[in-house]
Amino acid sequence: MKKIIRNGTIVTASDTYVADLLIENGIIASIGLHVEAEGAEIIDASGCYVFPGGIDPHTHLDMPFGGTVTADDFETGTKAAAFGGTTTVIDFCLTTKGNTLQSAVDTWHNKSRDKAVIDYSFHLMVSEINDIVLDELPQIIENEGITSFKVFMAYKNTFQADDGTLFRTLQTAKREGALVMVHAENGDVIEYLVEQALAAGQTDPIYHALTRPPELEGEATGRAAYLTGLTDSQLYVVHVTCAEAVYKIEEARRKGLRVYGETCPQYLLLDQSDLEKPDFEGAKYVWSPPLREKWNQDVLWDALWNGSLQTIGSDQCSFNFKGQKDLGLHDFSKIPNGGPMIEDRFSVLYSEGVAKGRISLNKFVDIIATASSRLFGLFPQKGTLAIGSDADIVIFDPTVKRTISVQTHHMNVDYNAFEGIEITGEPVSVLSRGEFVIRDKQFVGTPGAGQYLHRNRFEVPTVELSSTAEKVSGGIR
Amino acid sequence: MKKIIRNGTIVTASDTYVADLLIENGIIASIGLHVEAEGAEIIDASGCYVFPGGIDPHTHLDMPFGGTVTADDFETGTKAAAFGGTTTVIDFCLTTKGNTLQSAVDTWHNKSRDKAVIDYSFHLMVSEINDIVLDELPQIIENEGITSFKVFMAYKNTFQADDGTLFRTLQTAKREGALVMVHAENGDVIEYLVEQALAAGQTDPIYHALTRPPELEGEATGRAAYLTGLTDSQLYVVHVTCAEAVYKIEEARRKGLRVYGETCPQYLLLDQSDLEKPDFEGAKYVWSPPLREKWNQDVLWDALWNGSLQTIGSDQCSFNFKGQKDLGLHDFSKIPNGGPMIEDRFSVLYSEGVAKGRISLNKFVDIIATASSRLFGLFPQKGTLAIGSDADIVIFDPTVKRTISVQTHHMNVDYNAFEGIEITGEPVSVLSRGEFVIRDKQFVGTPGAGQYLHRNRFEVPTVELSSTAEKVSGGIR
Amino acid sequence: MKKIIRNGTIVTASDTYVADLLIENGIIASIGLHVEAEGAEIIDASGCYVFPGGIDPHTHLDMPFGGTVTADDFETGTKAAAFGGTTTVIDFCLTTKGNTLQSAVDTWHNKSRDKAVIDYSFHLMVSEINDIVLDELPQIIENEGITSFKVFMAYKNTFQADDGTLFRTLQTAKREGALVMVHAENGDVIEYLVEQALAAGQTDPIYHALTRPPELEGEATGRAAYLTGLTDSQLYVVHVTCAEAVYKIEEARRKGLRVYGETCPQYLLLDQSDLEKPDFEGAKYVWSPPLREKWNQDVLWDALWNGSLQTIGSDQCSFNFKGQKDLGLHDFSKIPNGGPMIEDRFSVLYSEGVAKGRISLNKFVDIIATASSRLFGLFPQKGTLAIGSDADIVIFDPTVKRTISVQTHHMNVDYNAFEGIEITGEPVSVLSRGEFVIRDKQFVGTPGAGQYLHRNRFEVPTVELSSTAEKVSGGIR
Amino acid sequence: MKKIIRNGTIVTASDTYVADLLIENGIIASIGLHVEAEGAEIIDASGCYVFPGGIDPHTHLDMPFGGTVTADDFETGTKAAAFGGTTTVIDFCLTTKGNTLQSAVDTWHNKSRDKAVIDYSFHLMVSEINDIVLDELPQIIENEGITSFKVFMAYKNTFQADDGTLFRTLQTAKREGALVMVHAENGDVIEYLVEQALAAGQTDPIYHALTRPPELEGEATGRAAYLTGLTDSQLYVVHVTCAEAVYKIEEARRKGLRVYGETCPQYLLLDQSDLEKPDFEGAKYVWSPPLREKWNQDVLWDALWNGSLQTIGSDQCSFNFKGQKDLGLHDFSKIPNGGPMIEDRFSVLYSEGVAKGRISLNKFVDIIATASSRLFGLFPQKGTLAIGSDADIVIFDPTVKRTISVQTHHMNVDYNAFEGIEITGEPVSVLSRGEFVIRDKQFVGTPGAGQYLHRNRFEVPTVELSSTAEKVSGGIR
Repeated sequence: MKKIIRNGTIVTASDTYVADLLIENGIIASIGLHVEAEGAEIIDASGCYVFPGGIDPHTHLDMPFGGTVTADDFETGTKAAAFGGTTTVIDFCLTTKGNTLQSAVDTWHNKSRDKAVIDYSFHLMVSEINDIVLDELPQIIENEGITSFKVFMAYKNTFQADDGTLFRTLQTAKREGALVMVHAENGDVIEYLVEQALAAGQTDPIYHALTRPPELEGEATGRAAYLTGLTDSQLYVVHVTCAEAVYKIEEARRKGLRVYGETCPQYLLLDQSDLEKPDFEGAKYVWSPPLREKWNQDVLWDALWNGSLQTIGSDQCSFNFKGQKDLGLHDFSKIPNGGPMIEDRFSVLYSEGVAKGRISLNKFVDIIATASSRLFGLFPQKGTLAIGSDADIVIFDPTVKRTISVQTHHMNVDYNAFEGIEITGEPVSVLSRGEFVIRDKQFVGTPGAGQYLHRNRFEVPTVELSSTAEKVSGGIR
Repeated sequence: MKKIIRNGTIVTASDTYVADLLIENGIIASIGLHVEAEGAEIIDASGCYVFPGGIDPHTHLDMPFGGTVTADDFETGTKAAAFGGTTTVIDFCLTTKGNTLQSAVDTWHNKSRDKAVIDYSFHLMVSEINDIVLDELPQIIENEGITSFKVFMAYKNTFQADDGTLFRTLQTAKREGALVMVHAENGDVIEYLVEQALAAGQTDPIYHALTRPPELEGEATGRAAYLTGLTDSQLYVVHVTCAEAVYKIEEARRKGLRVYGETCPQYLLLDQSDLEKPDFEGAKYVWSPPLREKWNQDVLWDALWNGSLQTIGSDQCSFNFKGQKDLGLHDFSKIPNGGPMIEDRFSVLYSEGVAKGRISLNKFVDIIATASSRLFGLFPQKGTLAIGSDADIVIFDPTVKRTISVQTHHMNVDYNAFEGIEITGEPVSVLSRGEFVIRDKQFVGTPGAGQYLHRNRFEVPTVELSSTAEKVSGGIR
Repeated sequence: MKKIIRNGTIVTASDTYVADLLIENGIIASIGLHVEAEGAEIIDASGCYVFPGGIDPHTHLDMPFGGTVTADDFETGTKAAAFGGTTTVIDFCLTTKGNTLQSAVDTWHNKSRDKAVIDYSFHLMVSEINDIVLDELPQIIENEGITSFKVFMAYKNTFQADDGTLFRTLQTAKREGALVMVHAENGDVIEYLVEQALAAGQTDPIYHALTRPPELEGEATGRAAYLTGLTDSQLYVVHVTCAEAVYKIEEARRKGLRVYGETCPQYLLLDQSDLEKPDFEGAKYVWSPPLREKWNQDVLWDALWNGSLQTIGSDQCSFNFKGQKDLGLHDFSKIPNGGPMIEDRFSVLYSEGVAKGRISLNKFVDIIATASSRLFGLFPQKGTLAIGSDADIVIFDPTVKRTISVQTHHMNVDYNAFEGIEITGEPVSVLSRGEFVIRDKQFVGTPGAGQYLHRNRFEVPTVELSSTAEKVSGGIR
Repeated sequence: MKKIIRNGTIVTASDTYVADLLIENGIIASIGLHVEAEGAEIIDASGCYVFPGGIDPHTHLDMPFGGTVTADDFETGTKAAAFGGTTTVIDFCLTTKGNTLQSAVDTWHNKSRDKAVIDYSFHLMVSEINDIVLDELPQIIENEGITSFKVFMAYKNTFQADDGTLFRTLQTAKREGALVMVHAENGDVIEYLVEQALAAGQTDPIYHALTRPPELEGEATGRAAYLTGLTDSQLYVVHVTCAEAVYKIEEARRKGLRVYGETCPQYLLLDQSDLEKPDFEGAKYVWSPPLREKWNQDVLWDALWNGSLQTIGSDQCSFNFKGQKDLGLHDFSKIPNGGPMIEDRFSVLYSEGVAKGRISLNKFVDIIATASSRLFGLFPQKGTLAIGSDADIVIFDPTVKRTISVQTHHMNVDYNAFEGIEITGEPVSVLSRGEFVIRDKQFVGTPGAGQYLHRNRFEVPTVELSSTAEKVSGGIR
């Protein structure tokens, strides 16, 4: 069945123009001044932006954590994502020591297969690199299309890898064409600081931030960048929060190192003082790395502007305030880390970025969709509005004013960290491969309709400046 | 008359895909998998790239200089540009003290009106800022659409403006929505160095480079950036040649300042040692700023990659080796500065950049066309392949191997600085507003067919990251 | 007549120990555990520090400025200096265009000869560099021992030199063995800012600061450092006030450039908000460069600590609040620049630096005396307590608490910028070449007893790290 | 017995002058123009420098390493040191896991007690920090006067401490008044690189350098500096070799962090190419960190000049080429690390530094003696020529030309890494606490005459700028 989106303002990472867009067989078949197609359903988009669907490169759905499990699974999570304008998520598949990588991937397929309402893919969390893992990795890349691995420099004694492991992972990524993701905080030192804080009776949520100072994020970011340079490999720093870390990424990029960075909406809008809210409410704002002093927000915006940071992830990892966050009522270190963000990521970046004049429309598209598709091997299938690309499309009304609230959001969690914040703009309709998932702000999708995405390998110079990197060999399907 | 470019690989600053492209009334009317239009001429582009026509933001055609005049005028210059894949040039209109700005613009209209074979516009060289000039400027912007002014920090006693003038120009640009361009070298010190070299009998071309050390470019670049920050204005540094200058631009952009930079093909391929060629041949390589030590080339490429530099200009300013360059046979300071570059800019960047794997196809388009169109207020009319944009198009064969030579180039000058360099790729056909100027490598255009372009004002955040900046209000015609 | 200072704690730039010190013929003849000398007068210094007399490298005494003249001349000024613990001042000799340098020096000799109570020397202010000046300079250096020249990058149309002049002065200094001093602010831009402020009716003292932003000091400092590098010469940046300027000096020194910096007590204790005091009182705090935002003070202290800045000058330039400062009552640009500082420089640095734990005793001596003596060619005659050096000595009681006030100071001016500030420590007695000038806090000196000091040429590596630079050839008289 | 050193040129970190120096009871009793003392032995030092004896802050004597033991013990080592002009060494006491710190210190006392010919002290190598060690540490500091601890960031699985241990050591040092020393290289990554090199059959000495790239030293240095800032503690980076590491130290010091650095003569004169010498001779040049590319030498000299590095250690750790170095004949990783340097450190720094005009005489004294005495709590007993200080004195002839050779050196090892290098200057006589150890270039000392030195705690701001830091409370004995 064909569809024509008529009279919308089509926006890509480089262009903005009014045109009609024809969808056929789930892909974008034509764009023109006046497009006609027999039997096509006509969707009027006058006065609206027509964006490529958002890509969220960083989610944790249905993830076990410290004896509990995230409040959102692949059904509630992807539904909320769709409401928010996101049509692809890349979730983190947790491996466990002693088991095969494949078994972990299978577990994640089982969690998602019948639930996802939009397309999805997986990153692999690498908890150890040994000869067995290295033997299995190439076939995971080949068979599953998983071309990004995450290494933790924090969470001592659980996820944390030593520098040798990070180094070897970078070497492997270079050889296999993959992208290494790091959680960059110095876990050894954090462990001591947490221990010392608790020993001193400092148990409130604010101590979560105070025991993870920005210097420890800057340090680890710089360290990972050095190792990337030594291996001539590629690195993606997840959830960058502060000036110290941004400066290290900038330093690396000035030398021509392939180092990329992601920030998250929470770091752009919230700050460390939120952790001091009374009645344990600070627990709602516990992310790792933590929220920072407010002045860091300007540095993050500048870094998005000048291209030092390329993407925005949600780091979606929702836990209910009642029943989950309160595990840490008497010990901040037991508060489950993370929050609900998958739904608001898209609109918040539009409102605070475009509507407030900090970034342009095209830059917005780049950050919210295109850059992630390139970095993670989904381009040009996803992340843009181009002939032949999947018709993953958001029709967005830039005039709506609304207030974010747990009352109205669609995530399966009992609070929203942006409660009460007023924003501008809202997705009206959202299509995945040409089919409506959201239509006129109503969910019309189907659990299980989302497809798993095999991703391409990382190619040099496929990915350079976020918005523009692409090589023909890899770029044309 | 309609045309369909069929089966080409369409490349923009963000996308690459195979499709058909329909031209109607001189603009791009439709792009799709299979486009048909009654009566349309079909142009087969299989195996070729379909690029937006190049925009050369920096040319000097028919320009008087030191008692002589450039070898190329608007006819020979724009013809050569078209052969090379460039469909828009922005030339520098010289003002003279004591005369109105309008009279200078009129002179430039007269030079170009009946000669240009492609579209063109003018920057204004500001030789003095006083109350009379300031009074006239707003109407020049309004009536002529000239929204960029150039200030010289070098050429003492001729073009050089003092810092107060630069400052006031930046203030004016901020208020009026214009972009200030600077030639960033410390002219006061250069004057002394030249004088001292000549007094010491150092007259060979190499002393041109040695009396203009990179520190003096770095210094002036940093100075201009500081003033830009103080005025919250916008700055475009022309012909950046060296690490010292790049670092200053990077420093400014890290702080969020709207500072942009252009380099030129000569600085990416040639180096200071060329000035030492015997038999006065070094004179062919006299540009200001001068060619630098070879290691600076890597810094420039990295800066194009990471977005610190956004554009490539030709700085076309051709003088014959015999009869013009030899004015400086016994005194390097009398060698006319500049060289022929308008024709090879496009292909050389493709060959050294894309074919050698330094930048991607999309980045190439951004640098060669899109970024200049945004920075100088031509977007989206020029600089991209989008519905509604002018059909300024290059059909480019990426497989051709050829050697650059004065024997085969089309510029009206007796040497080529890239003589003997082998490159990959060649424009096959070039269209301007839907009409062929070059067809199958033959010139089929018409002097005078080129139109003068009124340009839009600089808008914040219209132009930020080179490839992606655009605001809807200004972006849609 | 011999004197023995007994049981004091002798402090130099590198050592601290309790010993007796013998003065003979005006020089330090011996230092030891128990020194005896027949007929020697015994001065008990138990519980006191015995410091070398302070050297103030930056004073303006009896200086005409904008139709008025500084409130302190060589008699009142050097008397106040002596009360404060300073035994040598280097004043700025103003040259005037069209007259010989020698005539200017003679004028300054006439101002000082019969008045100075302590030793003194002159820097030369270079207002123009032309062939006549260059011809005369070597003999001024040779005959007068004036081995430091000051160049202004600010004060357009009066003192300001262009970059070519600065460059040529640096070349000359390199050749002759002299040190170039710069007032580093961008005068061209300041002129516009002042003009625009006045045109907007912004006449209050605070606009003095707002029209001279720190960026313009940082810019000029970096520019001067670049030129120093190009000439392989040496540079001394007077009155550094802010982070922007400190960073440029640090950058230069990291590259091994001989760039040195001075700050002043006012920049360490006062800040921009003082300019906003009501009833025109802000005028008391008008220095150029202006006082800065308070956070810059930490950067200055760190720079003194880590050696990026080496000296403290008073920039003594006193004008009465009534009758002089009020020339600018309705126009901040007419407020005479400068303030009284010659007396408090020494004690304020001790109190805020040593007593508050920011710097050590030895570092204090280095900053207040030794570094200046080395940089300006007075070492080892002045600036240290070494065998053979002039017995310029301060006996200092570190336990006294007192409050700075115009009521008790000895400068000939009607206010004190530090009015009401409590400090720790006070000079008890001060000797110049072995003779008391201050004894038990009473003046016992004689106008005209101060001698003019011929200074040595700057030698490389004579002066490197402030406290330790010295070459034997130059170091031993 | 009294001695008078007559007519020498006395040089301290801040002063240079000709005088007589009286020694009484092993200390410096008086310095003056003409010193007499009944019964005193007169030593003529005309034409010679009189320096404070050198302090070598970094030696490994009688140290077991990989199944062998260093070629020099406390007798041969300190004898060679004395010949070279060094009168104090601080050796590293190796602790072993599971044993008390006191037992390790006792072992080192036993190694040194009857052998040392000059005074000595110990640093403690901290191999683990746990509650037992932390309990014992305060009494080691108090009883043994050991106020500096070394932590290794390299040597995985043997000495290497994790970041948490480093952090906790820094906290302890802050609390107790001690200085933390780090060997800054990333041991995790080096382990992999070594493993991979050996697996690839790369066994020659040059691979020692190639598997320890400078980035890994820069990274670790920056990391340690970050942790120092977080703990507000103090850090001393041993054997800094390269620009990457220097830049990190400079960055820290610019922020006011108490971070100090030491380099070694080998890094100033030798370079990576020495490791490529044929016939396994490269093994003579195996230090960790390794020798670097030659251009780094300029950065090190600049850093000594500008104060970013404060000291020179020998890192004396001698192994015979035959019988010890050849343990690594077929595997570079088995070559014992280190070389003989204790004897030549002093003269080489004089010759390459002072005689070649890179640093001044006073700076030389600071680097070779004074700075180490301050940093390690020996000041003012050691490291200077001041009234009351130990009479540890070198009479140095600056005119001698000689060639370094194993034939003439006094170390107990079969090669000299500086073989054949010509230098200027030589110690003639050396005194320890007023007694000759070397007299007219002959050894006249006594094994066992050297005394163990209890050192003072690190005090803030005792140690800041290398040459000048000192607080009265700690500075006067």
